[in-house]
Amino acid sequence: MAIIIEYGLMSFYEAQLLRQPSSLILQAPEHNLTYLQASRLNAVHGSVSVAPLKLGPPPPPPPQKLASLTVSFIRIIITIVLLPSPSSSLTSQPSNVFPSNKPPRFLGKHSHSIKTNHQQYRYETRYFSQRLDHFSFSDLPNFRQRYLINTEHWVGASRLGPVFLYCGNEGDIEWFAVNTGFVWDIAPHFGAMVLFPEHRYYGESMPYGSKEEAYKNATTLSYLTTEQALADFAVLITDLKRNLSAEGCPVVLFGGSYGGMLAAWMRLKYPHIAIGALASSAPILQFEDIVPPDTFYNIVSNSFKHESNSCFDTIKQSWNALTSAGQREDGLQQLSQTFHLCRELKSVEDLSNWLESAYSYLGMVNYPYPSNFLMPLPGHPIREVCRKIDSSPDGSSILERIFNGVSVYYNYTGEVDCFQLDDDPHGMDGWNWQACTEMVMPMSSDRKTSMFPAYDYDYSAFQEECRRDFQVTPRPRWITTEFGGHDIEHVLKFFGSNIIFSNGLLDPWSGGGVLKNISQTIVALVTEEGAHHIDLRASTTEDPDWLVEQRETEIELIEGWLDNYREKMKATFKI
Amino acid sequence: MAIIIEYGLMSFYEAQLLRQPSSLILQAPEHNLTYLQASRLNAVHGSVSVAPLKLGPPPPPPPQKLASLTVSFIRIIITIVLLPSPSSSLTSQPSNVFPSNKPPRFLGKHSHSIKTNHQQYRYETRYFSQRLDHFSFSDLPNFRQRYLINTEHWVGASRLGPVFLYCGNEGDIEWFAVNTGFVWDIAPHFGAMVLFPEHRYYGESMPYGSKEEAYKNATTLSYLTTEQALADFAVLITDLKRNLSAEGCPVVLFGGSYGGMLAAWMRLKYPHIAIGALASSAPILQFEDIVPPDTFYNIVSNSFKHESNSCFDTIKQSWNALTSAGQREDGLQQLSQTFHLCRELKSVEDLSNWLESAYSYLGMVNYPYPSNFLMPLPGHPIREVCRKIDSSPDGSSILERIFNGVSVYYNYTGEVDCFQLDDDPHGMDGWNWQACTEMVMPMSSDRKTSMFPAYDYDYSAFQEECRRDFQVTPRPRWITTEFGGHDIEHVLKFFGSNIIFSNGLLDPWSGGGVLKNISQTIVALVTEEGAHHIDLRASTTEDPDWLVEQRETEIELIEGWLDNYREKMKATFKI
Repeated sequence: MAIIIEYGLMSFYEAQLLRQPSSLILQAPEHNLTYLQASRLNAVHGSVSVAPLKLGPPPPPPPQKLASLTVSFIRIIITIVLLPSPSSSLTSQPSNVFPSNKPPRFLGKHSHSIKTNHQQYRYETRYFSQRLDHFSFSDLPNFRQRYLINTEHWVGASRLGPVFLYCGNEGDIEWFAVNTGFVWDIAPHFGAMVLFPEHRYYGESMPYGSKEEAYKNATTLSYLTTEQALADFAVLITDLKRNLSAEGCPVVLFGGSYGGMLAAWMRLKYPHIAIGALASSAPILQFEDIVPPDTFYNIVSNSFKHESNSCFDTIKQSWNALTSAGQREDGLQQLSQTFHLCRELKSVEDLSNWLESAYSYLGMVNYPYPSNFLMPLPGHPIREVCRKIDSSPDGSSILERIFNGVSVYYNYTGEVDCFQLDDDPHGMDGWNWQACTEMVMPMSSDRKTSMFPAYDYDYSAFQEECRRDFQVTPRPRWITTEFGGHDIEHVLKFFGSNIIFSNGLLDPWSGGGVLKNISQTIVALVTEEGAHHIDLRASTTEDPDWLVEQRETEIELIEGWLDNYREKMKATFKI
Repeated sequence: MAIIIEYGLMSFYEAQLLRQPSSLILQAPEHNLTYLQASRLNAVHGSVSVAPLKLGPPPPPPPQKLASLTVSFIRIIITIVLLPSPSSSLTSQPSNVFPSNKPPRFLGKHSHSIKTNHQQYRYETRYFSQRLDHFSFSDLPNFRQRYLINTEHWVGASRLGPVFLYCGNEGDIEWFAVNTGFVWDIAPHFGAMVLFPEHRYYGESMPYGSKEEAYKNATTLSYLTTEQALADFAVLITDLKRNLSAEGCPVVLFGGSYGGMLAAWMRLKYPHIAIGALASSAPILQFEDIVPPDTFYNIVSNSFKHESNSCFDTIKQSWNALTSAGQREDGLQQLSQTFHLCRELKSVEDLSNWLESAYSYLGMVNYPYPSNFLMPLPGHPIREVCRKIDSSPDGSSILERIFNGVSVYYNYTGEVDCFQLDDDPHGMDGWNWQACTEMVMPMSSDRKTSMFPAYDYDYSAFQEECRRDFQVTPRPRWITTEFGGHDIEHVLKFFGSNIIFSNGLLDPWSGGGVLKNISQTIVALVTEEGAHHIDLRASTTEDPDWLVEQRETEIELIEGWLDNYREKMKATFKI
């Protein structure tokens, strides 16, 4: 396994990092991004082999454009994490996440299924009264923000016991608590209090008293923004610490995916409130023109090609096959049978969305060991999908192969009798709203390098859909104006500190992540075999060595922040 | 004149600073605040002499409490800068700035008088359409933000010509442009574009089309907040640079007083938008319990005591004398005559407010040379006031002496026949609103060390007045939650860069300023003889050496930021 460690000025942290025999790609400032990007791009283009990416011959020529998919876009999947399906016998799938340029739906109706999760942590549930608009003095009703708290390992204010705060993202906070075992695992070692505040407009943290009221229209939804959510966290933790006379206790932020973006941005915007942030799989560069828009689908595609060229080719050809099948008489009925759908298909598009979702999620959860994050899956699930596609009986049609493959994702346990496609992709869902307002992430699918249908990003069409669905006009440039992103390595080289950006290169979101060290204290941990914020999950006996080592590095970095902080405080207060 | 230069690790900047033979107090990280604070406090308490503060005997015992001033507060003057009076024959004064705990009024009705100013700079006036609420998607009308722009010295985008942006504060932007000669003076040397964007809800930048509509009620005023104003600047400059294809051009922020707070906070919150900030006389620590609440009035009082103990004593005794006089039959009429008021006095309180305002403003503009910032004044105006008080003919009453003294402030030109006290202190003024919402700066007056009437800060009474006057409840902890302030030296020691905090120790606002270097690039320039943001004023032939040197230091620091920036950009883009 490749070990790439470069270093410039040796810092405390880097000195520690060097002790790690690991597969982490640890990069010193100003190095390696070019190398990494080049290797990824070369890998995608099939010209340079970079361990452990096994590359085959160049991709086949692009398939003929699908007639019934002539829509000038691909269903863009911005959904970052998904809840496990509530029932195993009648699976309602998170498909159609971005039909017709529409912002993706997210947790939504599955968000109450978390009670079925296997692992539970102890916490108390509390509520805090928050302003609806922190940045104006409009006379609006406060709302109850839910937060989960555990103080059993906290060493207390007098010993400057730290507060570990997970930045709740777009869903029920209990689900994130259950799926962020890392924070629970390490809290006792640090004597830390654990806090999981919920993101406004998700779970139980509903303005206007109920989800129905909060999601009523663009006016009631208008305070569902990232800046408001960060201010919620800031106000909550400030108040909580004051009530505990724990003003001096350091706060460390954690977050994965959109939550990781929140953690990084919060450290940047509120350095007086949190001393550092672990931002895992946080695609803070997935905006405007900062990274190429085709990165996401290229990474997914490359993961399939890495397993098998024929698998990649089959999927790439399947869109045409799907369209042709749909155009036949009784085509939709035939497709419904081939794909074991519970109800007859209404359009080919619904089916292709369902398939695209599966591939994208597989890219995100392409973990090296069995997991149950989005779905119950085997280790290396893409390998398994491709094995099914490639090993289908001779004479199997493309679509039969595709069904066999995608069943690994949607029915690994074999308990599903028939599949139910999401029939309400236009529902008023929180992440849909966020994607239609601030979280405007341009995505395209390259005709050559992607196995997905080709699509050039079409902002106008996207904007139209947002206006139609939410009566809101997106602000595609706002995030970079408010949080930056362009030229980040220069901007933050002498500004800011104590942020870990961790990314697994298998994760399609890593394309929008920070992949190289920016300074001695704003560092990138890049794992070649990592997928979507795997480091935040609870440790298991199946964890590969590189993951164990990655987490150890994170712990040491956090320890360094806390040591520095305590040293400064001791000098001042003589504690 | 004392020269105090301490330094730790020698940085580029500090090395430059050391070359300056000056009266600047340049402080290395972690040093001197204690020293300075101690010296100031000692000076205030009259026990330790620190050059050039000449100290006399301890202050006299506190005067008997004024009966008709039994209000348990002092009129707190938060007003930071004021326009010159529009007419010299009938002077409407900026008095009563904080009657009855009310937030102070500010520019307001004088804000159209700027055309009478003596010096003009060339600029083009433009307008930019801004969102009313940047942090929500409420369907609100955009408003026109005015900005002044001058590009005649700009070397252009291809040469990375800098943009000098003055953060418009609470008033008509043209007045700030006229009174910020420093930026105009140095722009040609830097080949810089000059931008003066106006603060929302001031001057011509009125939401809802007019001041009348914008100031109608708490709902229309609710978007008058600091965060919104910063976002206005961020959006404006981002758009402007894009339109000029000047995305790579560095932005340097300037600001004085509240504008200085905006500049510092903007650099902290938007490091991707501005590479550095000169924050002059920015009392960013004047919130909550960060600095003692009596600092402001102690500094003013000390400036008077520094000139003359008897002057200080006379003022301190005058409040009792005023009350006694007011209680007599025809007392108000007599007072009106003694103080040459145009209309008969309605209450002693109005008069004491008027006097307190004068003293506080004198503290702010206690410049060493004649100036015309708030009023036409001689150099060392407090010295002149005390000379008038002390040299009044034998047998003069305390109040006659006071009148002679205060006439230096309100009638230095001798053109005023009678004085008109502000009779509308409760007007809906922008700064009053800001003081009643976010800018909650606790102020008190110490019974021993202050020459002002004693007052213990009473937040409840303050809150009540805000509710009564604006139907709004202040958020006294919000500024420190949003921008920090507590323990700033630790928080910013390893976070942030490129901020100059300049303060003159004669300025009462310096008590809430950053007076010591925080890091190698977040530095404090402290001048012993400086008053309120004197460094931002145009250079004159009368400038003392220390002021010339202070400005040279600021220029060198800014040059350092720009050099560093260009170096980084060159490395990337090979320009």
